[in-house]
Amino acid sequence: MELSQRISTILGTGSDGWDVFYRARQMIKDGTPVTELTIGEHDIRTAAPILRDMHASALGGHTGYAMVPGTTALRETIAARVQERTGVPTTAANVMVTPGGQSALFAAHTCLCDPGDVALYLDPFYATYPGTIRGASAIPRAIQTRAEDAFQPRAADIAAQAKGAKTLLINSPNNPTGTVYSRSTLDGIAKVCLDHDLWLISDEVYDTQIWEGTHISPRALPGMAERTLVVGSMSKSHAMTGSRCGWIVAPEHVIEATINLSTHTTYGVPGFIQDAAVFAMDQGPAFEEEIAAPFRRRRALAKQVLAEQNTVGLVPAQGAMYLMLDVRATGLSGEGFANALLDAHHIAVMPGESFGAAAAGHVRVAMTIEDTQFSDALRTLCAFAQSLET
Amino acid sequence: MELSQRISTILGTGSDGWDVFYRARQMIKDGTPVTELTIGEHDIRTAAPILRDMHASALGGHTGYAMVPGTTALRETIAARVQERTGVPTTAANVMVTPGGQSALFAAHTCLCDPGDVALYLDPFYATYPGTIRGASAIPRAIQTRAEDAFQPRAADIAAQAKGAKTLLINSPNNPTGTVYSRSTLDGIAKVCLDHDLWLISDEVYDTQIWEGTHISPRALPGMAERTLVVGSMSKSHAMTGSRCGWIVAPEHVIEATINLSTHTTYGVPGFIQDAAVFAMDQGPAFEEEIAAPFRRRRALAKQVLAEQNTVGLVPAQGAMYLMLDVRATGLSGEGFANALLDAHHIAVMPGESFGAAAAGHVRVAMTIEDTQFSDALRTLCAFAQSLET
Repeated sequence: MELSQRISTILGTGSDGWDVFYRARQMIKDGTPVTELTIGEHDIRTAAPILRDMHASALGGHTGYAMVPGTTALRETIAARVQERTGVPTTAANVMVTPGGQSALFAAHTCLCDPGDVALYLDPFYATYPGTIRGASAIPRAIQTRAEDAFQPRAADIAAQAKGAKTLLINSPNNPTGTVYSRSTLDGIAKVCLDHDLWLISDEVYDTQIWEGTHISPRALPGMAERTLVVGSMSKSHAMTGSRCGWIVAPEHVIEATINLSTHTTYGVPGFIQDAAVFAMDQGPAFEEEIAAPFRRRRALAKQVLAEQNTVGLVPAQGAMYLMLDVRATGLSGEGFANALLDAHHIAVMPGESFGAAAAGHVRVAMTIEDTQFSDALRTLCAFAQSLET
Repeated sequence: MELSQRISTILGTGSDGWDVFYRARQMIKDGTPVTELTIGEHDIRTAAPILRDMHASALGGHTGYAMVPGTTALRETIAARVQERTGVPTTAANVMVTPGGQSALFAAHTCLCDPGDVALYLDPFYATYPGTIRGASAIPRAIQTRAEDAFQPRAADIAAQAKGAKTLLINSPNNPTGTVYSRSTLDGIAKVCLDHDLWLISDEVYDTQIWEGTHISPRALPGMAERTLVVGSMSKSHAMTGSRCGWIVAPEHVIEATINLSTHTTYGVPGFIQDAAVFAMDQGPAFEEEIAAPFRRRRALAKQVLAEQNTVGLVPAQGAMYLMLDVRATGLSGEGFANALLDAHHIAVMPGESFGAAAAGHVRVAMTIEDTQFSDALRTLCAFAQSLET
């Protein structure tokens, strides 16, 4: 009476580097104040007008089964938004609504990969990526990016691992590095996908958090619309993490497949949440900029603080709500540094190693606390790093 | 650039018998009034006090990521409810909250079956069962139940197919047959599971809709708690279909596995929906009886109508919101009869064949419209059957 191999191995092997996170949680529970910079969640809640719209929809009777692919209104709103932002012709038939971006990532891999197929992803990576691939019974194969390239992936590194692979998963703006993939990076990725007949799964959930440069959706590159599945979500752009509302944008025949999967996995998303998502998107770019503004501000503060010293390096942080800091000058690993910082100053950051080998010697800082507290914590972190410098 | 085999074959082969359903939808769209008896959804909406509690929770700030396994409050409420109803010691650690019962069915099969494992289920079956198993890359194997047994499964029939199987999925009260499995049926099923070392997945989402007899959860039978995963949901018991809130109750180590899966598939359920679910369950049995009452009433009406004639047979209908009617005396298949009824009288029912070979020559009637309209439709159905009788 065993569980499935698939589920028994979903977490992979070895330490996952999340000890610091759990230690911080325990300290807080035990009454020690900890400055929490580990988690990618806004320090604001979902805006009341969105919640009022949701409530009106529910009271209005939208509490029965919603259509499995998503409501027509939300699919059309997402399609129009994507078309406007990317220029790629997109209709409701190219969109399936999912209960959150994570669900979309899983659906994409399940619809593309059979058991035993190889699915590529880039290191460093968002924590769930390899497990999502394993959950779909596919085989995760990591491709290292390099700190010296500010974690922009090199096409040649991907091509070297692409043989026999079915999919490539990318994420720009990137969690954990804050890197926004450049046009030339994305051109290189597109070429590898075309050369090696790979599906591209493009996780773009941070696409409204751009501090430098431009977000380019690889679906807009020549020949790519037919082989790209874009994952999006209301979570980051509209501070609706807890509403679990995301989507896949893909060719129609792929969407038909994801709908068949949804019928057998999640059976749709609450109608009142979908109505609220339409309302939220209808608030337009100014609202999204308002949601993004605190991170833009704190990223500017961080650049100032970091400029005052030479011990801790800042990966450019072109987008997303994180900073990736290079602490190799301390002689410690990311994990060693994060643990020492937690002990010495009760500041919790994520070891780079939690996100893969490529981010060793780094720590990820979420820009998710109030500005002054945030710069103070960064100053403390830098001073602590200097004190350790070898 | 192919999709996965898994997703390309998820629907299985052959006609799925849902043509009548789609024809009825089209007629309604084209302006023809159709009496709709196909779908298992209440003719009421979620109660306003539940929605107000949900809104208060959301406005109160429960709009961020909720804990992946579910909120402590909801897990404890479900555990207490299950323990009270079954007598089996159950704690929050035995519970994982899922976005709906369908999600729980998928998670259960994914956590128990590896690709290629055989998963048993009983025919007739809820429409998504075989696709759910295929979605988990397992191999569905149907076991026929028999109209002459009122669709109570025979242990010997299951045992005959159990060799090499990993799981058995059952559903009592049953959709589509309305059968509530008896103690002796469940004892037989338990023995097969123990003899053949099968996991039992027990879909009990209709457990508050019992019109005759008693609902017994097989998890309460000797030796079964350690090998049973119970699937539950707020959908039917509290008229919250659109809220997508369900659960799995299982041994702790199984729940740990389902949590690992959830982290990589759905990433939890909205906190405000979970709070509303706690509020709804706190309304107690009287509220649940109120939600079930219309179906209880209509089932009594149906018995009267059916007693007035001898052409159409009624499967006992001990529970759930459906009637299974035997129309074999008309000489038509269930599909033939359903199509003819739709054409002649604009009444839409589901062919038994949509739910598997075992329900051939039957139609399923959802008791989901207003009482008088409901009995009138049934009377028309019976008269139509009589007019066809061979």
